[in-house]
Amino acid sequence: MKGWMKNIRQVTPYTPGEQPKRPGIIKLNTNENPYPPSPKVDKALKEMDVSMLRRYPDPTCQILNDALAHEYHLRPEQVFTGVGSDDVLAMCFMTFFDGEQPVLFPDITYNFYEVWAEVLRIPYRKVPLDEHFCIQSRDYAVPNGGVIFANPNAPTGQILDLGTIREILDANRDSIVIVDEAYIDFGGESALRFLDEYENLVVIQTFSKSRSLAGMRIGAAFASPELIRYLTDVKYSINSYTLNTAALIAGAASARDRKYFQETVGKIVRTRERVSARLRSLGFIFADSSANFLFVTHPEIPAVKLFEALKEEGIYVRYFRQPRIDNYLRITIGTDEEMDALIRFLEGMILL
Amino acid sequence: MKGWMKNIRQVTPYTPGEQPKRPGIIKLNTNENPYPPSPKVDKALKEMDVSMLRRYPDPTCQILNDALAHEYHLRPEQVFTGVGSDDVLAMCFMTFFDGEQPVLFPDITYNFYEVWAEVLRIPYRKVPLDEHFCIQSRDYAVPNGGVIFANPNAPTGQILDLGTIREILDANRDSIVIVDEAYIDFGGESALRFLDEYENLVVIQTFSKSRSLAGMRIGAAFASPELIRYLTDVKYSINSYTLNTAALIAGAASARDRKYFQETVGKIVRTRERVSARLRSLGFIFADSSANFLFVTHPEIPAVKLFEALKEEGIYVRYFRQPRIDNYLRITIGTDEEMDALIRFLEGMILL
Repeated sequence: MKGWMKNIRQVTPYTPGEQPKRPGIIKLNTNENPYPPSPKVDKALKEMDVSMLRRYPDPTCQILNDALAHEYHLRPEQVFTGVGSDDVLAMCFMTFFDGEQPVLFPDITYNFYEVWAEVLRIPYRKVPLDEHFCIQSRDYAVPNGGVIFANPNAPTGQILDLGTIREILDANRDSIVIVDEAYIDFGGESALRFLDEYENLVVIQTFSKSRSLAGMRIGAAFASPELIRYLTDVKYSINSYTLNTAALIAGAASARDRKYFQETVGKIVRTRERVSARLRSLGFIFADSSANFLFVTHPEIPAVKLFEALKEEGIYVRYFRQPRIDNYLRITIGTDEEMDALIRFLEGMILL
Repeated sequence: MKGWMKNIRQVTPYTPGEQPKRPGIIKLNTNENPYPPSPKVDKALKEMDVSMLRRYPDPTCQILNDALAHEYHLRPEQVFTGVGSDDVLAMCFMTFFDGEQPVLFPDITYNFYEVWAEVLRIPYRKVPLDEHFCIQSRDYAVPNGGVIFANPNAPTGQILDLGTIREILDANRDSIVIVDEAYIDFGGESALRFLDEYENLVVIQTFSKSRSLAGMRIGAAFASPELIRYLTDVKYSINSYTLNTAALIAGAASARDRKYFQETVGKIVRTRERVSARLRSLGFIFADSSANFLFVTHPEIPAVKLFEALKEEGIYVRYFRQPRIDNYLRITIGTDEEMDALIRFLEGMILL
């Protein structure tokens, strides 16, 4: 063995969804938005003074944090932004989950929670969802070093009502509770309204889904000014300048365009409801989705077979080779045309 | 005390150089480039298809890594890119400094090395520079968990010759040795030529200084394919998509424009040499700089006094309130006009 190997951290990384480069693919595998970002983002980026890129970006991310604070009726000191919600969540894990007790999260959820806990050596315990893939608040009323769950959950798409979230918050006054709302804009009510009441609550959102800006990598945390300060201190200890100037400009323009945001989200929700009905009529079984994807299983055709056949056809969906969900597919809601192509192909497989 | 405080990581963050927002400032405090990025960057960004920002960026950063590999005659598997060299360095600390022995770095160097070691709980030992602020290779020929130094060093601007770097590499076959070349393009020879010979060498560079892209946050690591793989695995365990699409496009365009790069670097070097002579004639004492800044002291006027007076005048330079260097100023090389304004003001203070 090479001498320096003893100093190397070896990890099993998260495998992101495939990003096929060949053209003509219908890409329903990474929950991207089928519509472009707001035209105001285009305008703001075209008007960006590229010569000023010689300067460092604003490390306080003021224009973006101000725009978000204004949109959500918060104070800028309650907002923290980073390079996608992955960056924000990783910083949160590092900042808020630094205790001895295990951090709790569902056994079926965003796979990165476990990856971060592993790489940052945070003790954790996976709490099984019930047989309907639901979170039971009583499972989180035990000693812990922190709680995190996604709402709507991924990849199930199921929403937790505010009453249940309140139960989890009430049972965890001595822990930080993180609600990861990556998909909240597609359905359900945000826990942002609890911020004034619970100083141990952190709400995470992203520009990658509802705001069509996955390519710009922008995520946000909302919390009490005290928690945001701890988070900012850790950020300044890793990389003072995370969001680049283009991302700050694009993010601020997007956050200010509520009308376009509501229109595109509305379109996706309408497509989701229409596609849900069609898939059910084909025999697929799934809970109602509050996200921009469906998490479906079919009683007759194994998910892996559907996955492979769809891929062959150039339609990419997501299949997770992991316990309890290895007979499910996660299908992102694309445009109506894309979803019609998917349904036509599935009809061919199932009805013929 | 609030119950959740026990789970909070509290750190003393790095303080970045001031980013004054009022106009008319001569900003010589953060080693930014006074010239805009390549016109090819402007063109590439203007041509960027903003509608495609709905998609995640390429997690492999291929266009950027390919452009760098081509420019430096390396294979793409030897290149890793991230959100500024701070992001790349933080990932390197996490990946390569995971042993029990202390990591070694100079007592006077980029302050972030100590900040990362602290926040990531890596054992470390600061090795004093000699009385001329030089690195002595024999000081690094001791058991350690890794070695990192900046070349040219910051904030001294002094370069280590390749022979001394080879001595350090030869003495550390069982450790990873990181050479942080943030300023290498302004003078001195890169350790990139050693990559084929030393599989434990990592060379770090940045687009923030010589390439005028501080605002886009792009940094790179060059190493053996094996080390790059470990680094990439850790990146994929934190944030699969770090560099956004705009940064990938801007970085690739910049890396391909060698002519513009050489022109602007040449201008800065000429300004540095002219300003060095003028400052010496005013009594300032300093070693020759191989970077885009000067690290100066004056036998008669305390640095802090000069710092305050310059700031009052709207000329921002960097002053470090820390042992051994608290009578020095770090002055970034700006345009000729900016440097003339600085010199005129200093002449007024010193000669009158």
